[in-house]
Amino acid sequence: MHTAVRSIPADRAPASPSPAARVAIAGATGYAGQELLRLLARHPLVTVTAAMSSGTAAAARTLPALSRLWHGTIAPLSQETLAREADVVFLALPDAAAAELAPPLAAAGVRVIDLSGAFRLRDTQARARWYPETHSLPDRVAYGLTELERPAIAGAALVANPGCYPTAALLALAPLAAAGLLVPGVDVVVDAKSGISGAGKTPSERTHFSECHGSVSAYGVFNHRHGAEIEQGIGGPVTFVPHLVPLDRGILSTIYIRLKPDATEASLGAVYERAYADATFIRLVGAALPEIKHVAHTNFCDIGWRVDSTGRGVLVSVIDNLVKGAAGQAVQNLNVMMGWDERTGLL
Amino acid sequence: MHTAVRSIPADRAPASPSPAARVAIAGATGYAGQELLRLLARHPLVTVTAAMSSGTAAAARTLPALSRLWHGTIAPLSQETLAREADVVFLALPDAAAAELAPPLAAAGVRVIDLSGAFRLRDTQARARWYPETHSLPDRVAYGLTELERPAIAGAALVANPGCYPTAALLALAPLAAAGLLVPGVDVVVDAKSGISGAGKTPSERTHFSECHGSVSAYGVFNHRHGAEIEQGIGGPVTFVPHLVPLDRGILSTIYIRLKPDATEASLGAVYERAYADATFIRLVGAALPEIKHVAHTNFCDIGWRVDSTGRGVLVSVIDNLVKGAAGQAVQNLNVMMGWDERTGLL
Amino acid sequence: MHTAVRSIPADRAPASPSPAARVAIAGATGYAGQELLRLLARHPLVTVTAAMSSGTAAAARTLPALSRLWHGTIAPLSQETLAREADVVFLALPDAAAAELAPPLAAAGVRVIDLSGAFRLRDTQARARWYPETHSLPDRVAYGLTELERPAIAGAALVANPGCYPTAALLALAPLAAAGLLVPGVDVVVDAKSGISGAGKTPSERTHFSECHGSVSAYGVFNHRHGAEIEQGIGGPVTFVPHLVPLDRGILSTIYIRLKPDATEASLGAVYERAYADATFIRLVGAALPEIKHVAHTNFCDIGWRVDSTGRGVLVSVIDNLVKGAAGQAVQNLNVMMGWDERTGLL
Amino acid sequence: MHTAVRSIPADRAPASPSPAARVAIAGATGYAGQELLRLLARHPLVTVTAAMSSGTAAAARTLPALSRLWHGTIAPLSQETLAREADVVFLALPDAAAAELAPPLAAAGVRVIDLSGAFRLRDTQARARWYPETHSLPDRVAYGLTELERPAIAGAALVANPGCYPTAALLALAPLAAAGLLVPGVDVVVDAKSGISGAGKTPSERTHFSECHGSVSAYGVFNHRHGAEIEQGIGGPVTFVPHLVPLDRGILSTIYIRLKPDATEASLGAVYERAYADATFIRLVGAALPEIKHVAHTNFCDIGWRVDSTGRGVLVSVIDNLVKGAAGQAVQNLNVMMGWDERTGLL
Repeated sequence: MHTAVRSIPADRAPASPSPAARVAIAGATGYAGQELLRLLARHPLVTVTAAMSSGTAAAARTLPALSRLWHGTIAPLSQETLAREADVVFLALPDAAAAELAPPLAAAGVRVIDLSGAFRLRDTQARARWYPETHSLPDRVAYGLTELERPAIAGAALVANPGCYPTAALLALAPLAAAGLLVPGVDVVVDAKSGISGAGKTPSERTHFSECHGSVSAYGVFNHRHGAEIEQGIGGPVTFVPHLVPLDRGILSTIYIRLKPDATEASLGAVYERAYADATFIRLVGAALPEIKHVAHTNFCDIGWRVDSTGRGVLVSVIDNLVKGAAGQAVQNLNVMMGWDERTGLL
Repeated sequence: MHTAVRSIPADRAPASPSPAARVAIAGATGYAGQELLRLLARHPLVTVTAAMSSGTAAAARTLPALSRLWHGTIAPLSQETLAREADVVFLALPDAAAAELAPPLAAAGVRVIDLSGAFRLRDTQARARWYPETHSLPDRVAYGLTELERPAIAGAALVANPGCYPTAALLALAPLAAAGLLVPGVDVVVDAKSGISGAGKTPSERTHFSECHGSVSAYGVFNHRHGAEIEQGIGGPVTFVPHLVPLDRGILSTIYIRLKPDATEASLGAVYERAYADATFIRLVGAALPEIKHVAHTNFCDIGWRVDSTGRGVLVSVIDNLVKGAAGQAVQNLNVMMGWDERTGLL
Repeated sequence: MHTAVRSIPADRAPASPSPAARVAIAGATGYAGQELLRLLARHPLVTVTAAMSSGTAAAARTLPALSRLWHGTIAPLSQETLAREADVVFLALPDAAAAELAPPLAAAGVRVIDLSGAFRLRDTQARARWYPETHSLPDRVAYGLTELERPAIAGAALVANPGCYPTAALLALAPLAAAGLLVPGVDVVVDAKSGISGAGKTPSERTHFSECHGSVSAYGVFNHRHGAEIEQGIGGPVTFVPHLVPLDRGILSTIYIRLKPDATEASLGAVYERAYADATFIRLVGAALPEIKHVAHTNFCDIGWRVDSTGRGVLVSVIDNLVKGAAGQAVQNLNVMMGWDERTGLL
Repeated sequence: MHTAVRSIPADRAPASPSPAARVAIAGATGYAGQELLRLLARHPLVTVTAAMSSGTAAAARTLPALSRLWHGTIAPLSQETLAREADVVFLALPDAAAAELAPPLAAAGVRVIDLSGAFRLRDTQARARWYPETHSLPDRVAYGLTELERPAIAGAALVANPGCYPTAALLALAPLAAAGLLVPGVDVVVDAKSGISGAGKTPSERTHFSECHGSVSAYGVFNHRHGAEIEQGIGGPVTFVPHLVPLDRGILSTIYIRLKPDATEASLGAVYERAYADATFIRLVGAALPEIKHVAHTNFCDIGWRVDSTGRGVLVSVIDNLVKGAAGQAVQNLNVMMGWDERTGLL
């Protein structure tokens, strides 16, 4: 059965907006971390009180591009400093490090926005399979797919920021699943094409320029944890195959679905319009189909769709994997948590 | 029902190999035409007696890169010269021009290898829909998917060289369809990623560097004639979505299938090994999955596959769209037509 | 003799900042025009009262990427509307169109920021050679290289926004020329590498993806009007060779100079520090050398330099050709003209 | 003073062509080594008796792309096997490994073609500075810039295959220097743009896809050993600045020279025509200027030039850095050493 994504219910939505916030970033030199620093440095309601990284060489290479935008330094990782100097901590760390660091921070009353996968899966078995490093779960965890989880995010102690692939896939799929438009039991196919920055900043043969340039490759077939995250989001089976394409930033997901009788392009459009009536960052382009270029360096997710007379549907959604698929959505979640206008610092 | 691709039967296989051949190229300045010229200029059994193009400016830009490889000039298109000076004519022309030129050439006893789509579809209705420019069909037309159609190609008066997308898709799909491994009635999904040279050489906004760089786009959803060609090749329904990815040469097709019970990676492998026992240009990489980089600038098609315990299958095939997807396969077909070693001039 | 760039003197600097401005863009669908629209739409002190283009198809393709950022429509070009509805007009048009449109607008009291080359050269003969379309010059024309021309820009009726190549070259060269550090009479060599967006949005064989991908080409040797603009800026001979490199946005200029005795990396650094003491958008990186990636999608110009013991100097400067090399610098000039903080809307 | 490149004189040119050769490759998994394997596998007069590498993981990733082209395996490095099983050994190793391995192989009577820099510089002091790993020099070392050093190469015990940058620069510069056309004492400026494969196959932050894509960077200013190699080749001072551009294969060198009075485009052309009268792989394009795309995946070097009325000259030369700049030129040198047609296996 397909049912829409749901967070652990929120029990503490802020009564009134917070005036401003001290925020810190753990993992500021990776690609998502740099993007966070760039976004938060110009956010009008935020003071970045700490930016941390375990790699000092990385820090040296990161700062020149941020000069004049960000005036601080990048310090070694310190849980104590994070707990002391920040109201909200962004974790842009490997899964294991985030799994270890988030619970004590949450216990200390710091709100956490975690960009790793450590806390995304609600099902204990699924989590044990895909994220064995995660041993305990803080209270009030929300799944941070902003447009579909605002109430839970608003009251959360920890927001598990979605994976880049699930963000692109679920923003297109979840409203249709929630509306009951998908034929139950038929596999949804998600064929995703991602820029290389999605593979992170650590050099490897797979991300070597000469290996990627002029090439496309599939990976993780039947064996990628973002597949589990997408299945959680729609409550049904998904065949997910990610690909690396030779560009830096962006994901295009082509999604193949089987629709119930009578579904049309117009009826899908109506479902989307309803789901995203107040969603600035979702742009519905219908049969025009979106392109990565339109959303690169932005927090937008553009969604297009086609339906034929036999019930086949093709959805296409695009995001910038480092913005809407990581740092931008994290800042959007910060805005929701603080009761601020969701768009602050993002347009 | 899925059944394997079949050409119009061959009735005239050459008894013994031809000693050598005079060949001509009509449309020598497009990307496929240039590649043909490059391949044929170094083919040991061939003399290129004419290379023609309707565009003289294009000729001027084409020749510098071919200098020292090809010593002729590019002349204006002339049906008479083609019929007079060539035993075999390659047509690398738009569909309408090929539809008009091929029948009289064939009638004049010249063998034709047509790289356009004009003669690929056997079904009259399908052809009328997708290639309305094609009014008459020469006798003895073969569908030029070399590895699966050798007998028909050997005796053909006209070889309809397959489309680039169908080549990549059918080399992976057709043996499985022919072996009865696909669950009938379930859509096959072909998600194809192509380099920009596949869109041809005519400048347009869609192929402008700045529009393609850093972007991926889907096009032709439910409405691309290569979809009909793939359906013809497997005898069943196909959802085909092509994409442009920011590289020059190459196609990667990711194919989603539903397999009959008991199919395994091993049983698919056995089918492929049998189908391609003597096929130099098909390389079976199994679960390793192939990459475009491995086949760029070659006539190879690399095929990989994965099967899970529930009967889902994912096939990945890669080709160079200008070589195996166009000019290289055309030369391979020439070799078959002449009774030469299929690999001549291609390794 | 090398002397620094100088505008026609300003005679009317604003006594106090303007409160806000109505601005219009003529040529809103080219690459520079789109970037202008993006920047001006989020500028806090500006209302975009008109965005115009002669191409309606271009408008249709431009708007999706700007959706939610810009809420207007793109109208056909109209001189009357521009004069009536805008305090400041940005011209992002071909040279000939700008040469015709700017003088009447200026005469009507509208301030003009012209991104074409029509009004950049002060020397009548040079202008007649390189911009024969320019027949008359408005009063109070300033050369819009912001950091070096603020007073003239502040009071200008028309700002001739610099070319992308001259911006990158002169920001590195002009302070050294003004400080008398260059050996007179020795050619300065400017070897510039530009992304393809610099060639504009009109499709052509030269900007076709498959022609640019995997390639680099030189063009305009001894015959590019930006060479004359750079010579004007330093008052001495320049050998300028631009190249197209396979990326979308950005210019890296490598500049080879001969320095007077005793010049060192430190002395060059001191000259730059003085020239750019208050210049937010100039980042001096010294021997570290800058990269295009650091400035893409920003208004920064990063400058690095090396000097050896024999008086050879190598300068490297990088900009985003569409931002600091076009639309960003144009907005920066608007800020100067209006007496606003130069950074408004640009960080 | 500028004088043309000169090898240690040859004293043993082969009286008659060798019938065939057993060759081995040490370092077969790097980019140059793979290209060597690809070229030698199809060379009609050669048997590859051994392909070796110190990296077994690299071997595993290298072989799939070579399948059906090369039928052997890649073994661990062994000096004994090399000496025993090969008439000619190609070294595609780091400088230190080549410096150690070449002398004993040469002493054992094996002819060596070394693609490292260890034996390129003839001047002892220069070699001590740039290649301190090189302690001894075999007899009969030739500098392997084929077109200009054929006699020395023919009789050499060891051929020091030129660096990729020097190959592109010297093929354009050396004939002019030899003809006395350059003004003495005036710096030659060589501004080179190289694809990333030139940086080798070892992953690093500098060659990480996301760092290179959309970027250009200069490096090694006043401090790159290829500068010394170019200076050796023309006998005069050179300012050499290499750059990384976002493509895989190819170098474009833009060279700025000061010519003696009366030099014209025609007189440069005459010098080149004479120098390269019998040089298949040098294509002279004159004022048309060459592009990397024309030579990628070939052994050609295309050279263009422009001269103005004041004696300034701009030369542009392009090569594929892995073919003419490494493996292709090495095979060309093999052909010369064996007395074979220089083009064998290379067209």
